[in-house]
Amino acid sequence: MPNSEPASLLELFNSIATQGELVRSLKAGNASKDEIDSAVKMLVSLKMSYKAAAGEDYKADCPPGNPAPTSNHGPDATEAEEDFVDPWTVQTSSAKGIDYDKLIVIFSFFPVRFGSSKIDKELINRIERATGQRPHHFLRRGIFFSHRDMNQVLDAYENKKPFYLYTGRGPSSEAMHVGHLIPFIFTKWLQDVFNVPLVIQMTDDEKYLWKDLTLDQAYSYAVENAKDIIACGFDINKTFIFSDLDYMGMSSGFYKNVVKIQKHVTFNQVKGIFGFTDSDCIGKISFPAIQAAPSFSNSFPQIFRDRTDIQCLIPCAIDQDPYFRMTRDVAPRIGYPKPALLHSTFFPALQGAQTKMSASDPNSSIFLTDTAKQIKTKVNKHAFSGGRDTIEEHRQFGGNCDVDVSFMYLTFFLEDDDKLEQIRKDYTSGAMLTGELKKALIEVLQPLIAEHQARRKEVTDEIVKEFMTPRKLSFDFQ
Amino acid sequence: MPNSEPASLLELFNSIATQGELVRSLKAGNASKDEIDSAVKMLVSLKMSYKAAAGEDYKADCPPGNPAPTSNHGPDATEAEEDFVDPWTVQTSSAKGIDYDKLIVIFSFFPVRFGSSKIDKELINRIERATGQRPHHFLRRGIFFSHRDMNQVLDAYENKKPFYLYTGRGPSSEAMHVGHLIPFIFTKWLQDVFNVPLVIQMTDDEKYLWKDLTLDQAYSYAVENAKDIIACGFDINKTFIFSDLDYMGMSSGFYKNVVKIQKHVTFNQVKGIFGFTDSDCIGKISFPAIQAAPSFSNSFPQIFRDRTDIQCLIPCAIDQDPYFRMTRDVAPRIGYPKPALLHSTFFPALQGAQTKMSASDPNSSIFLTDTAKQIKTKVNKHAFSGGRDTIEEHRQFGGNCDVDVSFMYLTFFLEDDDKLEQIRKDYTSGAMLTGELKKALIEVLQPLIAEHQARRKEVTDEIVKEFMTPRKLSFDFQ
Repeated sequence: MPNSEPASLLELFNSIATQGELVRSLKAGNASKDEIDSAVKMLVSLKMSYKAAAGEDYKADCPPGNPAPTSNHGPDATEAEEDFVDPWTVQTSSAKGIDYDKLIVIFSFFPVRFGSSKIDKELINRIERATGQRPHHFLRRGIFFSHRDMNQVLDAYENKKPFYLYTGRGPSSEAMHVGHLIPFIFTKWLQDVFNVPLVIQMTDDEKYLWKDLTLDQAYSYAVENAKDIIACGFDINKTFIFSDLDYMGMSSGFYKNVVKIQKHVTFNQVKGIFGFTDSDCIGKISFPAIQAAPSFSNSFPQIFRDRTDIQCLIPCAIDQDPYFRMTRDVAPRIGYPKPALLHSTFFPALQGAQTKMSASDPNSSIFLTDTAKQIKTKVNKHAFSGGRDTIEEHRQFGGNCDVDVSFMYLTFFLEDDDKLEQIRKDYTSGAMLTGELKKALIEVLQPLIAEHQARRKEVTDEIVKEFMTPRKLSFDFQ
Repeated sequence: MPNSEPASLLELFNSIATQGELVRSLKAGNASKDEIDSAVKMLVSLKMSYKAAAGEDYKADCPPGNPAPTSNHGPDATEAEEDFVDPWTVQTSSAKGIDYDKLIVIFSFFPVRFGSSKIDKELINRIERATGQRPHHFLRRGIFFSHRDMNQVLDAYENKKPFYLYTGRGPSSEAMHVGHLIPFIFTKWLQDVFNVPLVIQMTDDEKYLWKDLTLDQAYSYAVENAKDIIACGFDINKTFIFSDLDYMGMSSGFYKNVVKIQKHVTFNQVKGIFGFTDSDCIGKISFPAIQAAPSFSNSFPQIFRDRTDIQCLIPCAIDQDPYFRMTRDVAPRIGYPKPALLHSTFFPALQGAQTKMSASDPNSSIFLTDTAKQIKTKVNKHAFSGGRDTIEEHRQFGGNCDVDVSFMYLTFFLEDDDKLEQIRKDYTSGAMLTGELKKALIEVLQPLIAEHQARRKEVTDEIVKEFMTPRKLSFDFQ
């Protein structure tokens, strides 16, 4: 919708003012907590949309188009709960976690800028028809909840046109936790059911730029993390894993695409999208182009030759979306197709969806190196519970699956829908106690992690080296 | 001199105020034009120093450390003549060209930030003693006029420690003019007398980012320009020429150094050095790291293996100095030696030192593709003359070699010191007429260009390819 933005921005500005009034009147009128909560959330969502669209915070006294006054946020900003999502920050103050329906509302408020769509029943059915496979439980349970252009990918697939998968990982440490596996587990499923090439980017350059690491450390984390990724079961004949630090110096196509993208993105744009400032190093400022480049098939001439027209499908966590909004904005201007996307929700920390998982806090999640005993202790000790204070109360009123982290983890890792539904019912009714719910999770996680560790042990240096060697895959591109 | 800068900046601020007063009083007191000119030039130099050091223009009502008021430049700013030098702009309003002694004053005002030294008789003598060769006429005549750490390079050389040469070219078009040859002619001489490895960077990525070119065009200009560079006579066993677009994807060391540099330079810094703005693309903003990286020997593992300690000497035109000030600032922070530098003056346009040469104006210089007839016509028609209006006046008062472009070109290309001195005397005295001076230049340029063209014809695609192939050179580095 060309030229419609200024009007929309002003509309949005006015909606925020109206919504702010509503929140205040609900509070003054002693409305129910739910009613107030819901209104505050919408207010925050509107403000996030505004910030994303306007490139600056909403300020009550400064409508869009006017120069910003120096005053600070108005009082309603400090009252509001805040969900905030960018590639480096995920925060929410709600124990239920980020409200993904709101997130889609935000993303869809400005179709040109955001344009992500909910993965609905219809799309899931279409994936099932196209692949002849039962949809992965991450799809069935809304863990991959949003997409861009997935129908276009399915059109291509149904017309026997090729596409490829691209996902990645920022190797910030050797330690990966179960949450890090989500995109890889799902990507492996996509690779299996669609039978397509897959490229996996290890952004060791990013981690070097952002963290207090040497190049060698960042690279060694990339290799160590690659082992965990390979242990997810990717087909060596269909998968190329690369470290940026390595591959940049081995590819005749990668740097050329990086420069092309860098020519078409301004500092103003990355400032708006990623919040960079003038004190940021020029490496950070130009990095988004490096995460964007694998979205274009000629970044991999060893796989796709000089083909520039092969569509890319990117399964990733929602916090990576800003990179690919930028990529999709640039693509048509440099003559390439826009990558399609499948977004997953965030994986909650053991302490609850409103806290942040951290590699430096071993108790914030289940790590891929944890022993059966550690898993048991962590779940029993640290998994935030939706149960009642006493057994009597729990039996009488039941537990709350919406905030219970053990139950959330089961939605990720317990594949059996019937069992999961039974647990949900029993916990909600109070028939199942918190200890029993935790036991169910421990019994799922222990073998899952043990099997992962066993598969990882099989991943020799030679196997990693082969996965990370630029080479032709089992597909012919002319 | 740690922590001395704030005081120096204030000192400089006060000097500008004092100098401004002086200029005004000279003008009011009807001082001689020369006196006023000289005072104005010093004022401009001081202001340039101030801008470089403070990161913003001198404003009379805004001493350093105070927030900038919104007022515009004071009246003295508009009165002053301006010399301005950065990698993309070279301008002066004086027919004599940039005042290089002033430039050194500027560079040396803040030793930490600039620290360039004049190439004096003593240094030239030392080069002669070290190499056992008569110094090149570019040194004898002050065409290479300024340096950084050249004595350190000579120390290393005298102690049989290795160093290497690095220079480059931005391939903005196929057309190169004689001025473009200056750094290469001198670099070839350095390579010959010191017998050291040489790397030559073709910044086709830069030209793609700055100009309306495709990647393929920029790369093809790099290859065409490489032919002209090779025709200067470089030793194929000691010289590696590379296109950034190509070499980035062929080197295990180059990108790693680029990222290292990019981590240690902020947007604020490149904004201050190169004048980038928020509307510039992120490619431009991060490019300075790519020009910096060849200053470090491990960017070329095929030549220097993993050695990081081999000093680099960069012969280049003075407008490239900002890149290497930045590089020298970063070097110790990433554990590498600072590159040394030798700076050349600018090559004047035919129309005079105050005009800009332009590849799009064929009459602004002598191009390497010009025929003997074109050379003759261009010199006769377009070379700015320091002669008098009539023969009679010329015989009586003589010509002015300081502004005569034909004479300037002879200082670049007539190797015979005695002949040049004779011409200078004869033209200054009026014994030599402008037509005769131009004839002397034409007779130097015609064979020089013809021989260059003949050598260039010998440069086959195979030879270019070999020069541009990453490989070991005739030197052993352990």
